[in-house]
Amino acid sequence: MHQIKVSLNNRSYPIIIADDNFEALAKKLVQLRLGTDAVIITNTRVRRLYARELQNALNTLNISAHIFNVPDSEKSKSISEYVKIISKISAMDTKKRLFLIALGGGVVGDLTGFIAATYKRGIPYIQIPTTLLAQVDSAIGGKTALDLPSGKNLIGAFYQPKLVYSNINLIKSLPSRQIRCGLAEVVKYGIIVDTKLFGYIEKNYKKILDLDNSSLGYIINASSLIKAKIVENDERETTGLRTILNFGHTIGHSLETAAGYSNLDHGEAISIGMVCSAEIAHAMGILPADELKRIIKIMKILNLPQEAKKVDIKAVLGAFLRDKKFINGHIRMVLPSRIGHVFVTENIPYNLIKKVIKKRMAPA
Amino acid sequence: MHQIKVSLNNRSYPIIIADDNFEALAKKLVQLRLGTDAVIITNTRVRRLYARELQNALNTLNISAHIFNVPDSEKSKSISEYVKIISKISAMDTKKRLFLIALGGGVVGDLTGFIAATYKRGIPYIQIPTTLLAQVDSAIGGKTALDLPSGKNLIGAFYQPKLVYSNINLIKSLPSRQIRCGLAEVVKYGIIVDTKLFGYIEKNYKKILDLDNSSLGYIINASSLIKAKIVENDERETTGLRTILNFGHTIGHSLETAAGYSNLDHGEAISIGMVCSAEIAHAMGILPADELKRIIKIMKILNLPQEAKKVDIKAVLGAFLRDKKFINGHIRMVLPSRIGHVFVTENIPYNLIKKVIKKRMAPA
Repeated sequence: MHQIKVSLNNRSYPIIIADDNFEALAKKLVQLRLGTDAVIITNTRVRRLYARELQNALNTLNISAHIFNVPDSEKSKSISEYVKIISKISAMDTKKRLFLIALGGGVVGDLTGFIAATYKRGIPYIQIPTTLLAQVDSAIGGKTALDLPSGKNLIGAFYQPKLVYSNINLIKSLPSRQIRCGLAEVVKYGIIVDTKLFGYIEKNYKKILDLDNSSLGYIINASSLIKAKIVENDERETTGLRTILNFGHTIGHSLETAAGYSNLDHGEAISIGMVCSAEIAHAMGILPADELKRIIKIMKILNLPQEAKKVDIKAVLGAFLRDKKFINGHIRMVLPSRIGHVFVTENIPYNLIKKVIKKRMAPA
Repeated sequence: MHQIKVSLNNRSYPIIIADDNFEALAKKLVQLRLGTDAVIITNTRVRRLYARELQNALNTLNISAHIFNVPDSEKSKSISEYVKIISKISAMDTKKRLFLIALGGGVVGDLTGFIAATYKRGIPYIQIPTTLLAQVDSAIGGKTALDLPSGKNLIGAFYQPKLVYSNINLIKSLPSRQIRCGLAEVVKYGIIVDTKLFGYIEKNYKKILDLDNSSLGYIINASSLIKAKIVENDERETTGLRTILNFGHTIGHSLETAAGYSNLDHGEAISIGMVCSAEIAHAMGILPADELKRIIKIMKILNLPQEAKKVDIKAVLGAFLRDKKFINGHIRMVLPSRIGHVFVTENIPYNLIKKVIKKRMAPA
């Protein structure tokens, strides 16, 4: 078991990376004195696998536990789902000390976090991420959000959990595509700040893809540590440090928008975004050829895409130009200078971006 | 002009008590560098009186200003009004540096504050309270909220404004009943912590009711100072200090709930609540008779009610017993020991509360 502290004054909390069981977690919750009554928010798939076991572990230690279910899709991050759950919580909230548990992936985490942030102006919550992507990224850092028809994550709050409990065993039931999508974010951490992590993946990718506990533990721990440090230094995205987490995301999001969030998973889109960004950096003379090769190769060995097919390239470029990453008319992107180091630049020729996108995306 | 600083580390902000015009405010906003594009959220009555003038003052200093209107009632604190306004804001939010202005009373302030707290995880906002109640109380302290059908203020966040601009001239168009309701909260500050303020009202009540600028300035300044100090020491209602602000509110809220928020204004309900609380304290031997007399007398001279008529007393007692101010089965209330000093106690005989409520409330 690893434990990492996210240091944010009176909002500090531990990240526990474990391969134990919910009994150990329940004991930790008693220690933390979060409350006597838990509301577990989860989705249909995860509920079937883990919710009852978690409920039992809590009950054994005299913590009551209600389970509320949401659909297993981005649609759960809606205002209507939010109001439905808040109303249910308020109906059962009589003389209780409530706290929330997000048991699921990024969608459940975002929704639960926003409920915790805004129910009676804030109640405690913890994150139990059940996808690799959530364990290494979205469960850490207190970003919570809902979608509106006019845009994703338009509503939200920065609101830190009291604990992130990342249990390696919980991700073993995931389809391999979801594992690989989580690995895309791990590769991102390697490129932006951690040469050693990148090298570890190059060397141990087979064990990782075989879901070997110690290899998974290593990459989850290393990733969580990086995310924790960045959040500590830029909790509310005001200092600019958190920007480097957007490596691969500017082009990745444009691709997702153009693809209508359907064909490509987030991890696949940012894999292509990272490859494009690396090629832009190489063409600008910033990233050496051998480093670019390593980046392309790691996508290959992890079976992550390096290019997109059947794409409306005009739509991608349109989404790219509408993106909020524009600062005073300049295109702001995060580019790598070597593996383990990126920087933010606003001086990228648009023609170069267009050329690389056209190279890496094939029309329908 | 008075200026008070609310000291909350990187969330600190000034309260300005002024009788100048919106040009001075616009200059202050330029100084504060909040953004280049303002969204003014206001209600129908206030819009007609002040919104255009504010818009012009901002435009003169190159700050664009959209005006969004909400109905002039508690209904504006609904999820549907919230989503409507957020959607409008997101539709106009292209490459802008937005900030919000709450131009109105407590309802507009609560709604605007919650939008600011949650749109894109937080954007800046300022409060321009246009009622006495909002100037001395709700605009200060960062409490924001929406109502749900199942309860008032069930959704919300602690989110501090960047400026509270209390202009005395803005409250002069208020009906006298609303002025008196605001004065109830000023009287409350006197009873809980400020003998001098209480004495000032006793001596100057005629000038206050005549809306004399220097008298209004005195009481708004004194009240804002008290609220600011309490908020500084208990920003998120965790230390218990903010509890003393509930003086008169436990019984007052019960009365409001029983009256269905219709016959009684908030200020009137808490006036009766304060009289009841003072009588309970006196009956318990805590508050001397002459102090009780002064409290009852000040309500009389301000034309604030000391008792309620046509009340369903059973409903009041029922609401009182359901109130969240119960701690482990004990009834927690804020009681005065003298004018300028209150304390929180949990040892109040229920029979005494019942007796005082029955004395001060007449059935239909």
